[in-house]
Amino acid sequence: MSPSLGTTSVVCTLTKTSSPAEAAVTSVDTALRHLLETITPLPAEPVPIGAAAGRVLAEPVMAATPLPGFDNSAMDGYALQASAIGGATPEAPAVLPVRGEARTGHPAPQFEPGTAVRIMTGAALPQEADTVVRQEDVRRDGGTIAVSAPVALGTNVRRRGEDIAAGEIVLEPGRWLTAIDVGVAAALGRERLLVHRRPRVAILATGDELVPAGSACGPSQIADANSPMLAAAVIEAGGEPVMLGIAGDDPETIREHIQAPTGYDLIISSAGVSVGDHDHVRAVLDDLGSVGVWRIAMRPGKPLLIGRLGGVPYLGLPGNPVSSSVTFELFGRPAIRALQGAAALQRRRLHVHLAEAMAKPVGLRAYVRGVLADGPGGMAIGRSAGSQGSGMLHSLARADCLLVLDEQTAEAGPGTVVEAIPLR
Amino acid sequence: MSPSLGTTSVVCTLTKTSSPAEAAVTSVDTALRHLLETITPLPAEPVPIGAAAGRVLAEPVMAATPLPGFDNSAMDGYALQASAIGGATPEAPAVLPVRGEARTGHPAPQFEPGTAVRIMTGAALPQEADTVVRQEDVRRDGGTIAVSAPVALGTNVRRRGEDIAAGEIVLEPGRWLTAIDVGVAAALGRERLLVHRRPRVAILATGDELVPAGSACGPSQIADANSPMLAAAVIEAGGEPVMLGIAGDDPETIREHIQAPTGYDLIISSAGVSVGDHDHVRAVLDDLGSVGVWRIAMRPGKPLLIGRLGGVPYLGLPGNPVSSSVTFELFGRPAIRALQGAAALQRRRLHVHLAEAMAKPVGLRAYVRGVLADGPGGMAIGRSAGSQGSGMLHSLARADCLLVLDEQTAEAGPGTVVEAIPLR
Repeated sequence: MSPSLGTTSVVCTLTKTSSPAEAAVTSVDTALRHLLETITPLPAEPVPIGAAAGRVLAEPVMAATPLPGFDNSAMDGYALQASAIGGATPEAPAVLPVRGEARTGHPAPQFEPGTAVRIMTGAALPQEADTVVRQEDVRRDGGTIAVSAPVALGTNVRRRGEDIAAGEIVLEPGRWLTAIDVGVAAALGRERLLVHRRPRVAILATGDELVPAGSACGPSQIADANSPMLAAAVIEAGGEPVMLGIAGDDPETIREHIQAPTGYDLIISSAGVSVGDHDHVRAVLDDLGSVGVWRIAMRPGKPLLIGRLGGVPYLGLPGNPVSSSVTFELFGRPAIRALQGAAALQRRRLHVHLAEAMAKPVGLRAYVRGVLADGPGGMAIGRSAGSQGSGMLHSLARADCLLVLDEQTAEAGPGTVVEAIPLR
Repeated sequence: MSPSLGTTSVVCTLTKTSSPAEAAVTSVDTALRHLLETITPLPAEPVPIGAAAGRVLAEPVMAATPLPGFDNSAMDGYALQASAIGGATPEAPAVLPVRGEARTGHPAPQFEPGTAVRIMTGAALPQEADTVVRQEDVRRDGGTIAVSAPVALGTNVRRRGEDIAAGEIVLEPGRWLTAIDVGVAAALGRERLLVHRRPRVAILATGDELVPAGSACGPSQIADANSPMLAAAVIEAGGEPVMLGIAGDDPETIREHIQAPTGYDLIISSAGVSVGDHDHVRAVLDDLGSVGVWRIAMRPGKPLLIGRLGGVPYLGLPGNPVSSSVTFELFGRPAIRALQGAAALQRRRLHVHLAEAMAKPVGLRAYVRGVLADGPGGMAIGRSAGSQGSGMLHSLARADCLLVLDEQTAEAGPGTVVEAIPLR
């Protein structure tokens, strides 16, 4: 578990760009831009507020009426006019008769100047009363209270509209709604909210070597990790996964799997996008649809396919689970959020200090599986989660972030500030 | 939206501890400890891996067999013995006949020393072959390849077990499972995982002033924001909310609402926990169950009730939505995670620089609704999201974090490093 001292080589092999296919390399940012250009937000639909958390808002949420809706008390105490206790002192307290009670949720009683009304937190302030003295600050004696100090006019009164004015926009479209947002919408009297439809995301695994997780593996076979991983990641991003199963490494089977079904908003496949003799996804997509970009200057996850199939955006991820999960995070998740009309497509990134030196080839952006810890001075420190080979799942399981080393970096020393993408 | 310059007073009124009831104040940490002492993790249940994300693991996930399960190629290329190309130079390349193909997912062909086998990424390495030369690094000419440089033994070979050894524990119990964890479990051949049962959390709102969100408010009435907010927050924390509705401010109604139902793992109510004449939750719980702690040294959210009812932990939150959401975050969420047996009960907190001075009374911990922004040098900066009165929802809607000012702090200047709890 403990990271090695010295420099972590995050990329073992430096790829020579010897073949023409490899020469055409696109940056992560450019590729993401291409992908997002293929995407239009899905239509809006109304949902009850109880189902709105985790959805993306498709309308501005405005205050129809002011909040609070009426002047009310911020404390349990006595409503009165500040002028009635203006001269109060401990020696000569102001003594006021108590006339009635303002209870939360009930109409305020009649108020007479020179008297006090018992009032509860949240209760409507009686008309003409202008101030509330807290119950701890009076001496109650039968039908009167004694107040021994003046209080500024308006003390402990929440004024109508002081929080939110009528007509004010409180939640903007594009917002990924949290539980708090749901509470805010409810406070504004909303029973339903307009949100973007959830994207239906088709998920296809390809590879002769794959068997469904839980099935017995023959020799040379491995369990399909990508389908369940991507399904869970699609849900986390707000989408609805539709499983297309596992297609073998032949064009016909792949064609059958991706051609038959309709009604998707995005298709994500894994494997078959490289330049190997049996990597047929690209050929099939070239034939049936279009392929935009397909090699990204990043590690892990270099081979990537961005295209369209029957008008639907298509994202072809690399086959190994490490590359697949990293490229999903960088491309799949933003695409699914964009389909939902989200204003922010990326997770909030942290800045952290590297705890150890890291090296990588210039010209690629590296996403290092990392582990965060508290650092001196408050900023977190990030270290390698272990062996960074793209076949190494254990370091992915250990990682709680991806440490981002940009294209220009060849070696980053301990203490270098880098971006970290939190994973948990 | 723009925060005021100068010192933000996060707490307007400094409470005097004049009444005996207010003198008994408990710290946030002590109160949380009391709450967590009432909680035992729920039993485990098996779920398909497709439903495991967002659940808390109740077993160690171990590799039954090594990963990879067999020696395989990390690249598309040619499998051979490194010794066969030991003397290769550009002038005198090693020329090897190509005999057969190792395809991913298929048994490896027979291998003869002195020959090469065409091999695909992920394909099983033929027995006796020990090295893979990438296809970009050979010249293929009909039935032979020419290699012009030696390659270290084992290059581009992923050894059986090099990622994860058989018997190694890869995912520990108590882990909140992510999509990546699901992928890792699938790669280990798991079809189901043992996770803790989701807690059933009863949610009750109390208050004569409340109407369900979306219903028309009469004068002195407000929409119940807490029930939908808490329901969404319970789901986000991994629980299943059960709505008990709204109880009026009288002991009989409250009693009916919390007494009737059974089968809960936690009961959360809002409002009625203060010392007002019509705050009956505490009295009812005193009568039916037990109350442990009930005033917390924090702002917002001071009145809080921790108890038990019929053996079920009971958490009584303050009534206003700001205090209710903050106390849910600090107490409700950890309780729900503890019920699920989670190892980490708290969100990962950030450290940020204050962008502006903030003042608060000594002796209370303040949770300031804040907005984060990128700061110089990488560490985020946090500023006030607006007016911090406990009745002020707008600043809660704007906030993306809670800035934590500890008990000892009276005033914190710009640049002070404080903890921030991310909210979105």
